[in-house]
Amino acid sequence: MEKVYGGIEAGGTKFVCVIGMGPDDIRAETVFPTTTPEETIKQVVGFFNSYSGSDLLSAVGIASFGPLNLDSNSPEYGYITHTPKPGWEHTDILGIVKSALSLPVAIDTDVNGAALAEYLWGAGKGIDSLIYMTIGTGIGGGGMVNGGLIHGLVHPEMGHIRIPHDREKDPFEGCCPYHGDCLEGLASGKAVEVRWGTPAEELPEDHPAWELEAHYLALGIGNIICTLSPGKFITGGGLMKNPSLLLKVREKTIEYLNGYIDSSKITEDIENYIVTPGLGDYSGVLGAVALARMND
Amino acid sequence: MEKVYGGIEAGGTKFVCVIGMGPDDIRAETVFPTTTPEETIKQVVGFFNSYSGSDLLSAVGIASFGPLNLDSNSPEYGYITHTPKPGWEHTDILGIVKSALSLPVAIDTDVNGAALAEYLWGAGKGIDSLIYMTIGTGIGGGGMVNGGLIHGLVHPEMGHIRIPHDREKDPFEGCCPYHGDCLEGLASGKAVEVRWGTPAEELPEDHPAWELEAHYLALGIGNIICTLSPGKFITGGGLMKNPSLLLKVREKTIEYLNGYIDSSKITEDIENYIVTPGLGDYSGVLGAVALARMND
Repeated sequence: MEKVYGGIEAGGTKFVCVIGMGPDDIRAETVFPTTTPEETIKQVVGFFNSYSGSDLLSAVGIASFGPLNLDSNSPEYGYITHTPKPGWEHTDILGIVKSALSLPVAIDTDVNGAALAEYLWGAGKGIDSLIYMTIGTGIGGGGMVNGGLIHGLVHPEMGHIRIPHDREKDPFEGCCPYHGDCLEGLASGKAVEVRWGTPAEELPEDHPAWELEAHYLALGIGNIICTLSPGKFITGGGLMKNPSLLLKVREKTIEYLNGYIDSSKITEDIENYIVTPGLGDYSGVLGAVALARMND
Repeated sequence: MEKVYGGIEAGGTKFVCVIGMGPDDIRAETVFPTTTPEETIKQVVGFFNSYSGSDLLSAVGIASFGPLNLDSNSPEYGYITHTPKPGWEHTDILGIVKSALSLPVAIDTDVNGAALAEYLWGAGKGIDSLIYMTIGTGIGGGGMVNGGLIHGLVHPEMGHIRIPHDREKDPFEGCCPYHGDCLEGLASGKAVEVRWGTPAEELPEDHPAWELEAHYLALGIGNIICTLSPGKFITGGGLMKNPSLLLKVREKTIEYLNGYIDSSKITEDIENYIVTPGLGDYSGVLGAVALARMND
């Protein structure tokens, strides 16, 4: 019997589950809104248990919103920790899925998962030091260094870096409940909506919001480039679906780095350096499949 | 014949060379000021060639100031690239040392070298995701993720991240020739001296410079923690020899992260998380020895 893998992208708004081997081989797929942990995880389990393919579902991966406890020595390994998402704080997502499915289950952050999938099959294929950053309701980043996903103390929380904020030009205080005007507090979809009173997707292309958005994102991306020197910088999430934002972000990142990072990939080939995901909206859930495969 | 290794810490002010196996086994040592590349490298070669120990000098490592070209596919691999240090721009430090000594020579940045040595023998022993940051004339950072030194596009340039800068409280424009008020531009030894008109080591302990210095360093360290989630954060360099600065930096890092990074190592055990180098001033040159050993 051929092996097949399950992937769960656990998002704050929706869950996506697939069964398959990779981007060219997805055999079943479902999407449902994130409600309570009990109800949502019940739907996850139901999806996998009802799979009627002839293959053997061998392992499952979870690419989850967080923060997560990823310390394998901790009794709370695999828990969602202190999320503001109602009902989800301190949820043993790994343990519940594992015991319900009686299968090996791997877990990492949604963005580390997406980075892994983009490395295996997407825009970062074969580039073993790369970043995946999502700019949606929130901002998060994950990545790989020397072919290994970034872990250490906990896991990356790149959305929460502090960047310059000129309060004369932009008096908005920022909306991060922990840090006020960190990158997420200034440039997430939520920040855009609170600042301008309109959801990002409804703002016209020539609205000044986009120039400001590109400014903050380029400061954040520049910081991550200086810290990690990734070989590729992949930007996903709802806001990056605006192609003129991507162009502005590239331009300003070059401007702010100002030639200091001495690489032609930035100065001459930025359109192949800061890119959108090769797997489109599937980076996260395929990352979960990849986690399952790696763990099997 | 027993093998022994050479280490070269190539600094902008001085070069340190040792022959040995590690921190408990240094068999010869020399220090001289950095002058022209020709003269300085001649002294390096002279030191190693005059070693009269009975062991076989098997390989040499260089932990160098930069920026460096570390792209092993480039014809300029091992070059110092666009440094402002007079005479050193575009110097093939690796090639010259290699051909003069006729030995295998490895190279990395001074801070990546120091991170490696601290991982093997120092304050980060066995912690395979860690940062080594030096706060001296300039600011630089290197580190390890999953046991591998951080590389990718080029190498980390952590001193050049942008941080919040309140020009009302601190009207100093910053002294980085590339970025003005990046972390190095605001908080390096050079910035302290230009801002206050006095070298950092001559400022009294109760001078307001130290509070401001801790503020900027904590913002920078917090950003790197959010980006990489290192298991240990080692701070070296001249300015960190002031123990009250280290205390202030720890305090402000906790304050600025504000509980978001959910780890007791930060919230309850910061004195074992942000630390000074276990190898004192020897991290860099022992890192060079470690690079030589790894490469042999």
